[in-house]
Amino acid sequence: MTQRTPVLVDCDTGIDDAMALLFLLASDGVEIVGVTSVFGNNTAAQCAINSLRVLELAGRTDIPVAIGAEKPLVGEVTYLATHVHGSDGLGDAGLPVDVAAQPSTKTAVEFIDELAERYAGELRILAIGPLTNLAHALDQIPGLVGKVRDVVIMGGAADAPGNQSPAAEANIIHDPEAAQRVISAGWETTLVPLDVTMREILTEDHRDRLAVAGVPAASFVAAATDFYFGHYGMDSFGRRSSACHDALAAGVLTGEVVPLSAPVIDVVVDCTDGPGRGATICDTRGRYRNFTGTSGGNCRVVLETDGTFPDVLVRRLVGAV
Amino acid sequence: MTQRTPVLVDCDTGIDDAMALLFLLASDGVEIVGVTSVFGNNTAAQCAINSLRVLELAGRTDIPVAIGAEKPLVGEVTYLATHVHGSDGLGDAGLPVDVAAQPSTKTAVEFIDELAERYAGELRILAIGPLTNLAHALDQIPGLVGKVRDVVIMGGAADAPGNQSPAAEANIIHDPEAAQRVISAGWETTLVPLDVTMREILTEDHRDRLAVAGVPAASFVAAATDFYFGHYGMDSFGRRSSACHDALAAGVLTGEVVPLSAPVIDVVVDCTDGPGRGATICDTRGRYRNFTGTSGGNCRVVLETDGTFPDVLVRRLVGAV
Repeated sequence: MTQRTPVLVDCDTGIDDAMALLFLLASDGVEIVGVTSVFGNNTAAQCAINSLRVLELAGRTDIPVAIGAEKPLVGEVTYLATHVHGSDGLGDAGLPVDVAAQPSTKTAVEFIDELAERYAGELRILAIGPLTNLAHALDQIPGLVGKVRDVVIMGGAADAPGNQSPAAEANIIHDPEAAQRVISAGWETTLVPLDVTMREILTEDHRDRLAVAGVPAASFVAAATDFYFGHYGMDSFGRRSSACHDALAAGVLTGEVVPLSAPVIDVVVDCTDGPGRGATICDTRGRYRNFTGTSGGNCRVVLETDGTFPDVLVRRLVGAV
Repeated sequence: MTQRTPVLVDCDTGIDDAMALLFLLASDGVEIVGVTSVFGNNTAAQCAINSLRVLELAGRTDIPVAIGAEKPLVGEVTYLATHVHGSDGLGDAGLPVDVAAQPSTKTAVEFIDELAERYAGELRILAIGPLTNLAHALDQIPGLVGKVRDVVIMGGAADAPGNQSPAAEANIIHDPEAAQRVISAGWETTLVPLDVTMREILTEDHRDRLAVAGVPAASFVAAATDFYFGHYGMDSFGRRSSACHDALAAGVLTGEVVPLSAPVIDVVVDCTDGPGRGATICDTRGRYRNFTGTSGGNCRVVLETDGTFPDVLVRRLVGAV
């Protein structure tokens, strides 16, 4: 048996986090070795439970889930995106609220430390919530950067508008100081921003294919996105459809999303209290010459994908690939 | 004779400002009734002289030029773009350095006051430098907003990268506080940002057509852009070509540039000292539904044009239209 790549998923499990988890759980090349939760779509405590619910749906009650930060590095939580993800946090799609497994007794940072040690040099991190846990881990775990193979982040906006504010995306604005810490840490970092996640759109056709498959994970996603579409349809796209934000980052991690443009460029997070707070300021000035001659840079930023990931996601969830 | 629309041009005359002035001078529907200068591409004093040189080339020594602000509302001048515009400020294109006419003895604000009174309700302002003069005018001239028909600004970046910094365009970052004052003043404002000015490109073909026309204004622009292309070719587009920033804003003012997308949206200027200082934060979140249902907003932002303005500009300068 081929060795699977160990992946830690750091998430604030709502609907799109659930899609990312289910996509990875059904992917041959990777193995989720742990999940850490963070405030964002809900409290970290609830997001841990939501992760356990999703893992139980996939029959993977063996994967540990550790509870992480309930608040950002600076200040307090001002907002939880419960309206986007339904009253049960997972689209009111009928997933049991009670779970058999319990969260780990370890903190998220303790668990990250353990996994980084166990899988030193191999561990990949998919970070699809606010980056608070990783910032704490960087501060508290000596040598962490050298033990982690790379970090793939869903978050930010390069040349696209934000979603939480005109300039800022939700995961980053929840904790700009943490995001700046993580992006400037010196490890290999890939940012999957709104520039691409808002261009990979799940439609009613995708939902129909999920709904008829007779596969629990697919049925759940079909039901959960019914709720999600209501939010996106009104606010964003003017029709019933949705982005698949976190799941796209999972596809980038597995390599199944091959970016059409993903330069390594300078990224800095706006940590002021001004109107740009939480913006990921990406130096995309090289775009006019297709980034030829661009040098340096601290982050690979996915600027363009081909729009086919929702198909890949649906096929994976229905068990076709 | 049809009444021409009175236009005040507030500028920091370098090469693209010169193109804007020459375009308007050759346009039937508008009449430049005055020019005010501001620091930016050069000192305000030198920019006034440069404007006079351009006006003299066009035989319009009758148009008054008033010297404006030499520094921003806050802080000092940190940068003049002399390297972009040549040692003589106009591309070292052989335009005489000495001019017959002298700048007005009035200050820019006094002159704006006079013009706003004379052309109350009709005056249009083309602002193609830092917005310091207009900010001072707003503070010092009672009722100015009600006397000005509209303000068309070359500046900022909505979803495009900046040029002076990753987030900010040069005119705005020269004086963010002034830009915020002008954009939030309550008059009708149109922003022509890098999103479109970097997509309307003058090429060697355009230069060739200008050079052979035997028209002084066209010959000057052909020579000046020779220098300008050198700057742009290396830094931006990877070939000899250039944006025609300020001239595009002039085309928007005359109505000859018909934007494909120009929603009225909220714009706020980042006046912090953070990495986004000088950014024009435009709420373009409605772009995913083509701005249908967008309401409110303080500024019309030109987000898309069709790329044909350089042809219009060349035809105008060679006297074909």
